[in-house]
This record gives sequence, structure tokens and C-alpha cells, in this order.
Amino acid sequence: MTKSQMENMSSARVRLTADEARELSRQSLAGLGYTPVESQVLAEHMLDAAFCGYEYSGLPKILNVAEQLERRPAPTPMRVIHETPVSARLHGGGQNGMLTLHRASEIAIEKAVAGGFAVVGVNHTWMSGRGSYYVEMLANAGLIGIHTVSSRPQVAPPGGARAAIGTNPISFGFPTEGAPFVIDLGTSALMFTDLALRARRGETLPEGVAIDANGEPTQDPILASMGAVLPFGGHKGFALGLAMQALGILAGSGDDNEERAGYLIIAIRPDLMVPLNEYRRTLSETLARIKATPLQPGVESIRLPSERSQQERERNQRTGIVIDRQVQVALQRLARGNNEHARSLI
Amino acid sequence: MTKSQMENMSSARVRLTADEARELSRQSLAGLGYTPVESQVLAEHMLDAAFCGYEYSGLPKILNVAEQLERRPAPTPMRVIHETPVSARLHGGGQNGMLTLHRASEIAIEKAVAGGFAVVGVNHTWMSGRGSYYVEMLANAGLIGIHTVSSRPQVAPPGGARAAIGTNPISFGFPTEGAPFVIDLGTSALMFTDLALRARRGETLPEGVAIDANGEPTQDPILASMGAVLPFGGHKGFALGLAMQALGILAGSGDDNEERAGYLIIAIRPDLMVPLNEYRRTLSETLARIKATPLQPGVESIRLPSERSQQERERNQRTGIVIDRQVQVALQRLARGNNEHARSLI
Repeated sequence: MTKSQMENMSSARVRLTADEARELSRQSLAGLGYTPVESQVLAEHMLDAAFCGYEYSGLPKILNVAEQLERRPAPTPMRVIHETPVSARLHGGGQNGMLTLHRASEIAIEKAVAGGFAVVGVNHTWMSGRGSYYVEMLANAGLIGIHTVSSRPQVAPPGGARAAIGTNPISFGFPTEGAPFVIDLGTSALMFTDLALRARRGETLPEGVAIDANGEPTQDPILASMGAVLPFGGHKGFALGLAMQALGILAGSGDDNEERAGYLIIAIRPDLMVPLNEYRRTLSETLARIKATPLQPGVESIRLPSERSQQERERNQRTGIVIDRQVQVALQRLARGNNEHARSLI
Repeated sequence: MTKSQMENMSSARVRLTADEARELSRQSLAGLGYTPVESQVLAEHMLDAAFCGYEYSGLPKILNVAEQLERRPAPTPMRVIHETPVSARLHGGGQNGMLTLHRASEIAIEKAVAGGFAVVGVNHTWMSGRGSYYVEMLANAGLIGIHTVSSRPQVAPPGGARAAIGTNPISFGFPTEGAPFVIDLGTSALMFTDLALRARRGETLPEGVAIDANGEPTQDPILASMGAVLPFGGHKGFALGLAMQALGILAGSGDDNEERAGYLIIAIRPDLMVPLNEYRRTLSETLARIKATPLQPGVESIRLPSERSQQERERNQRTGIVIDRQVQVALQRLARGNNEHARSLI
């Protein structure tokens, strides 16, 4: 396909209802060989991203899953390496991260509900999806959730000419009187998925967010993708990323190998400290007070983390989502068990 | 005293050996009415700051303690509000934070060593000192320590015209094969102590770190101190500060009252996940690898958090520290039980 043909296809957009999107997702994942339960877990994760307005973490991501499956050795079952009443360390068996982290979250919930606290780690897994999804699971179970990732080197230290730590996001989920309060932040100035998207769209990067393969500052996303991105907020963002790196060791991270990336989940039952209802009420009041901060001229409102995505989710669950026609075609092919062209259509 | 007299006095500097500094600190704190044990705990905290190169968090801070004692109601004993085998919530009784947080850290160490995990919170306390001190205590006990503070509003949300959250630092301590790896970062672009120092020195603030009382951007530290500082790293730093705010509720934070600031300590025994020696070794290797990142032209080395302060501490413990002559005089007066002029000399 030529570039202009592809652009024409991209410009064709189709709207799917929530049910249609769910059905297409599940069937295409089943076509890739996932069991009905696995297909459901994976589909719900990516659907949720689509509902929240993260289009490329939504249905198109199933095509990335297909591509990875072609590249990677056949996975083995996830297994427990070490376990205590309040902890578990899991070997992901090379399974998709949206499956392993979902299971890790379930284990963290079980253990923390029973014992007040849990720490669960996974390594040997890939493509874990959105961290906010897991901490939201925890918060929906009445727990405070913290999720950190120590991923493969993509971020250069301030003054460094090579990547040395991962984009290392940290996510938090807190129970409130309404929807969970969810915070999800990468410690890099730019996520690698943003970089790929900007490269595809021919957009320039902001100044001071990336270096090329020679360690020189660059605003070219293609050169940056061969180099490294920088931490957000200079030394402070780097320090935070280092903390995730150190926490990742609990989850079996520790070398440059991507499969050794460490995914950690910490769950705390608030009533170790204050009654859950009091916690929910106080946090809701605190957030309402912060939201009501007087505004600078020209500012419409104080934006709290996850507020926009939760509003979009509510709307999109009703109205459905829009995807590229070519993505729909590729997923329909996968659903028929035809993986042949998935890769070329990404 | 006129400004120029004060500058003359400031320019007179004296060197104290570590033992002299320790003796002067303890005696001046005893002069303020602290018991020998309390004086020792407080002195060691502030001495450590001085050794680490944070002069104004060192011995001069004893004068701030004196000032606060004059202002505040007499404290009551710290008491336990709620306790489980892995948690404790403490009411600080209006005691100095360097005492209450030290006790909270001891409790966290006891509980986590016994049960694998601990969460301990304190409110009704003030001036908690450097967060790195507590997480280093935890790391020295072979624990991973996380310390968060939800303090009184000093930071405006992006787009906001008033402070709505605290400077809300987060600190991490990790055991290594050598000295603990310590990370300590405020979530504001500037700490309020920096602001006070810049105001005193007549220095201008960088652009984009503060607003005045009307919510307008300012580079004047005096106007900024009547307004608010901004989060570091824009929305990401704000999100991180909000997470500290939400964690602080576990420690009894929750309204605008300074005394309700919430200080939280989380301790995790690494062997819930990996053997402690393996944890130490892997983290040391990881840090060495990051430290060895190739450098950009003109850069001397990759700076890791706490590296500089730990080197300074080692040196200063041998060579002693330097303080203003006027601070020495004021502390000597306190040591003789004469608090009269402490305040005017700060």
C-alpha cells in the first residue's frame, strides 16, 4: 500500500457502538488464539482505553498484540516464584501484560482485603496497558493502589547521552464517594507511544524532551526514537524514575533485558488508618476544595487527573467509539483467524 | 540591628568540629526545655542536615524551633489514635515533627521488621525536618521506606490563582550494598525555605515558579511568599502532589489547618519479594550501570540523588561545619536558658 493510499484509508472512519466494539475486540482476540476468558480480559482493558479517549491504546492495539505474537516465543503459563500472605512475585511466562497485570491486581485485592496490605510483582511480561486500569480495579475494591513500572531503558539521565532507565510510570488509585480518584504519570517528558504517533504524523517534538543516537538534542521524532527521551521536570523527574527502577527490583527487574521489566502493585486497605467511609468522604471533600480554587484570567477550570478521561468514558460508553476503517477490516480478518495482513495494516 | 550590621555579622563565620556542633546543638535544645533524649533526637536530625550541606536546615534551624515554641501552645504527649499489627495512626500532640516523625519511623521499623510491612501516620505536628532522614533510618534497617507529606496549602494548581495543596514532598529510601539510596523530592517548583532565603538575599525567582497574592505570575520572592508557588513539571508535578494529598488523609490530613498536615511512612521488607541480599546487590548494580551512562559533551558525571549530600556528610563529619557567628552566639544564649534574643537573631 502506498503512503497516500494509507492516508486515504485512515481518513475513512467508522463508528461502533460499545457492544459492537466489545464483540469485534473479543472475536479478533479469540482469532489470535486467546481463550474466551483471556479474550474478555484483554478486550475490556483495550475497550476501556478507547472509551477513555485513548484511541491508539484502544482497538488498534489489538493489531500490536498480533504483531508481537508473531515475534515472540510461545508463552508459558504464569507461575508464582515466591509468596507470603501479603505478597506474591510472579513470573509472567512471556504472557501479555494485560493478562498478567490483571491477575496480579486480583491477587493484590484478595490479599489486601484479607490482610490489610499486599505487594505483588510481575516480570517476564510485555505490553501491560494503562496503569490507571489496575489502580482503578484496586480503588473499586476500596483499596489505595500504587502501581509502578521499571521498564527497558528509554530515558536518558540529565547530562547523559544514552537511555539508562525506563519511562517508568507511577499510578495511584484512591477510593472516593464517587468514581475512584486515579493518577497516572510517566516519568519521561514524552511517552514512546507519543513519539511513534508524532513520527507517523510528521510532527516536530518540543524542545528539550529528546536526544538522538549520538546523545545530541533533537526535535525529530524519528531520530529521537533511535536515541532517548528525557525525564519530565529535570532532576526531579529523573529521581522519581529512579525510585520506580528501585521498586521494580522487587518485581524481578534489574538488567537491560526488556523481559526483566518489573511491574509492581502495592495495595493498602485505608482502614488500617482511618475508617473507609471517612477516607472516602475526606478525599472527596479535599478534591472538591482543590477543584474550587480561584482561577487565573482566561482559565476555564482546574483540571484534576483522570477527570477528563472519566467523563469521556461515560459518554463513549453510551455513544460508542470511532476507529479507522482499516483497523476494523484488519480486526475482522483476525476474527476469521486470518492474521496474514494484520502487521501490514498497523 | 540594621541591615548592614546584620550583613557584617553574617559575614563572620566560625568553624565547629562535629563534636562541638553536637554539644552546642544539644545544650541549646536543652535550654529550650527539651529532655536529654529529645535534645539528642532533635540535635542529630539538624546536625545531619548540616553535615549533608544544608546549612539552614542545620544549626540555624534551632532558632526557628525557639521561635515556634514561643508562638505555639504547650505540646501534649504524642498518642496513638488507632493501631493494628502493621499500622499506627498517631496524634502528634503539637510536638515538634523531628520528634514525632522519628518516633513514627521507629514504630514503622519495629512493625515492618516483624510483619513485613507497616504504614504509620502522624498529624498535629510541625517542622518535620528532612524526609530523607526518616527513609534513610528505614533503609538502614534493611527496609524500603516511602515517606509522603501532605502539608498546608502553598502550591497553586496549574491555572489556579491560589494555593490549594502543600509542597507535598515524597521521599524514598532503598537498601544497597553501601549507603542507602535516598530520593527526596518536593512536588513544588521551589520550596518555601528557598523562597525565604531568596527573599532575604534579595534574589529574583526564575520565571514560571510562583504567583503573587492576586494570582499573577511573579519573580519577586516577597510577593511570591504572600501568594503561592507552582508545581514542578506542570500537570505531572501537580498530579504527584495530589497523590501525596490523598495519602496524607491516611495520616489525618484533610483540611486547611496546618496542624492537620499528614505525615505518612510506609515500610516494606524487601524479602516479601526477593532475598534482601539479592535486592541490595541488584540495586547496587543497577545504580552503577546508570552512573556509567555515556555523557553529553561538557558534562562531568551523571548525578544520582543523595550522592552529593552523602559525600559532603562524610567529609563534614571529619572536618566539621561552618556557621554564622551570630547563630553561634544565639545558640550559646539558648544553652544558658536565655531565649530572649533568639528570635531577633534569626
